[in-house]
Amino acid sequence: MKTDATRTLLVTQSDLRAIVDAMGLDALMDELIHALAEALRTYDASTTEVRKREGFLLDHPVQPGVLEWMPVMHRGHTVTVKMVGYSPLNPDQQALPTIIATNSLYDVRTGHLLALMDGVFATALRTGAASAVATRCLASPRSTVLGLVGAGAQAVTQLHAISRLFPLKQVLAYDTNPAALQSFASRAAFLGLDVRPATLAEVEAHSDIICTATTVGVGAGPVISGHELKPHVHINAVGSDLPGKTELPRALLERSLVCPDYLEQARVEGECQQLAPELIGPDLVTLMKHPDRYEAWRHKSTVFDSTGYALEDQVVTALLLKHAEHLGLGTPVALETIGGDALDPYALLRGPPQAPAQRLEVRRAVSA
Amino acid sequence: MKTDATRTLLVTQSDLRAIVDAMGLDALMDELIHALAEALRTYDASTTEVRKREGFLLDHPVQPGVLEWMPVMHRGHTVTVKMVGYSPLNPDQQALPTIIATNSLYDVRTGHLLALMDGVFATALRTGAASAVATRCLASPRSTVLGLVGAGAQAVTQLHAISRLFPLKQVLAYDTNPAALQSFASRAAFLGLDVRPATLAEVEAHSDIICTATTVGVGAGPVISGHELKPHVHINAVGSDLPGKTELPRALLERSLVCPDYLEQARVEGECQQLAPELIGPDLVTLMKHPDRYEAWRHKSTVFDSTGYALEDQVVTALLLKHAEHLGLGTPVALETIGGDALDPYALLRGPPQAPAQRLEVRRAVSA
Repeated sequence: MKTDATRTLLVTQSDLRAIVDAMGLDALMDELIHALAEALRTYDASTTEVRKREGFLLDHPVQPGVLEWMPVMHRGHTVTVKMVGYSPLNPDQQALPTIIATNSLYDVRTGHLLALMDGVFATALRTGAASAVATRCLASPRSTVLGLVGAGAQAVTQLHAISRLFPLKQVLAYDTNPAALQSFASRAAFLGLDVRPATLAEVEAHSDIICTATTVGVGAGPVISGHELKPHVHINAVGSDLPGKTELPRALLERSLVCPDYLEQARVEGECQQLAPELIGPDLVTLMKHPDRYEAWRHKSTVFDSTGYALEDQVVTALLLKHAEHLGLGTPVALETIGGDALDPYALLRGPPQAPAQRLEVRRAVSA
Repeated sequence: MKTDATRTLLVTQSDLRAIVDAMGLDALMDELIHALAEALRTYDASTTEVRKREGFLLDHPVQPGVLEWMPVMHRGHTVTVKMVGYSPLNPDQQALPTIIATNSLYDVRTGHLLALMDGVFATALRTGAASAVATRCLASPRSTVLGLVGAGAQAVTQLHAISRLFPLKQVLAYDTNPAALQSFASRAAFLGLDVRPATLAEVEAHSDIICTATTVGVGAGPVISGHELKPHVHINAVGSDLPGKTELPRALLERSLVCPDYLEQARVEGECQQLAPELIGPDLVTLMKHPDRYEAWRHKSTVFDSTGYALEDQVVTALLLKHAEHLGLGTPVALETIGGDALDPYALLRGPPQAPAQRLEVRRAVSA
């Protein structure tokens, strides 16, 4: 992006709306899937430094949430930091999404905040794109039935992203929350697919690809039984993102090729918590760099352990900013107190005043 | 602050200007010193969780910088995160401050970003206030001569804050950069004090209180000799904030009471890097809770090892937000994509369109 040394570009909800209006959701998802696949294939640890997510555990009597930071540096260029809250009671109690996030972009030369944007849409989009990228490598190319376990916000973009790569004939959705299950078909209607509610047993028995994206409590998993799955099933396990929070049965993981998005993090927060290190498969970067090595697994049981990878946030932030800039969107704001005398933190805050009354007040304040 | 469940309050440079216009810098500093002292005295680890600063080391051929996050949680209420860049070449190369920061406030119930504000002014202000608080406990009450080693941006607020508590008769400023030294008197003119440039030897010999706030390189310290200091000197060592970056001679530290703002961090980034653990004195919270225990030290050599403490950022963020709200300042922005269907990340981005032409475009995009 074009950088402004003193302004921060805000990309808000209405800017994203304008990007979606101009591009269309399908084109945006396609472009993101492509960009993410490229970023993974060309990942170079000497130019990209990814940090494991850290954060605060938020006390709640019923179900804990977290507020976390996910930093990644493109060395010599930018740092992207997503701040993300996971608050599983949000939809029922606050009419807010479970996941609320903002993505920030910093200039490494100066520390200046170049841009700040919504991360709710960006997170849903990139989490879908990550599953699509993994699914393309690991699922049977003839997959036509997609199962969703957990039909919340993330299920929308899981389905959307995978539908861009696979000719889905049927979508089976399951949720323990009847309201979420009931509304899913209308939330997915824009895709024009055959979406129907199903029992968990039906999802497990009939799906070629399954996405689990639930708010199951810590220690309360698994959310699927793993008994009657298709032998070639590919599962995107999206909901596992806390120590103790897992969605898949251990036996299923042990017989599958398990591909974590980011190994270090997945061993703390993902399905990989349940696995001995030697039973963990390639991470997403390795998978994308050497897809041929794992091609035989398309006909066997595979799992993408998606905890959320800061590199994905870097890619989606850059993509949305590119479109904002191209379309002349976003609002430049003089947020930081910079641009005056670099050695005087008060310079911009006390002069020159605009009106006599103000000037008087400033003088009085300064000499009080 | 009054919370808005879907809007983020932006407090920009111009809002801070209006706060300063309304309050005056002196009243603002006085209030911050008071609020910070209270927060330290009443600090309770069961309600406040402070994280050690972490970040990226930014490569630079001449002098490295950092981009760091400083999170602190007021349990059950808010999380404050300061993102802060330290870029020592900024003033000369970019006409920007060495330290550029933004402070964010999150609602722990939902993860929502409640407010975002400039952190450049806030950091300078709170770093001054922290030194003032420590200096009040550790310096001789009869201190009248303040020495500044490093006359950059932080020196302005170090001097301002300490001048609010001590009847300073003379200020001696030293800097290796002649331009910074020359401009300091005019940057400090608002205080109406006797500010004069001095040699390092003069600063060391005549000062009751010294503040070191330099951009000395990693491994290039110390910045003072420590030979001819007054026996009761109190030093606020502000510049030490990187592994290997220290400003004071080890022998001086070893004979002084050294009070770190935050022990865990100071042992990694502060002057305390140079000290065996048993030679480190009370941290700032302990000092403020039990000032009587350390009163005898007012007549001996003392050091406040100020690395920058996230609790200080929590206090200054809350204070400036309180004033912004009281004065009706700040701009509420619908930054996050929240407020629509909590289970549909696309809901707010595709409907209802405003005009027929737009509607057409949305339909085409969605069904493409």
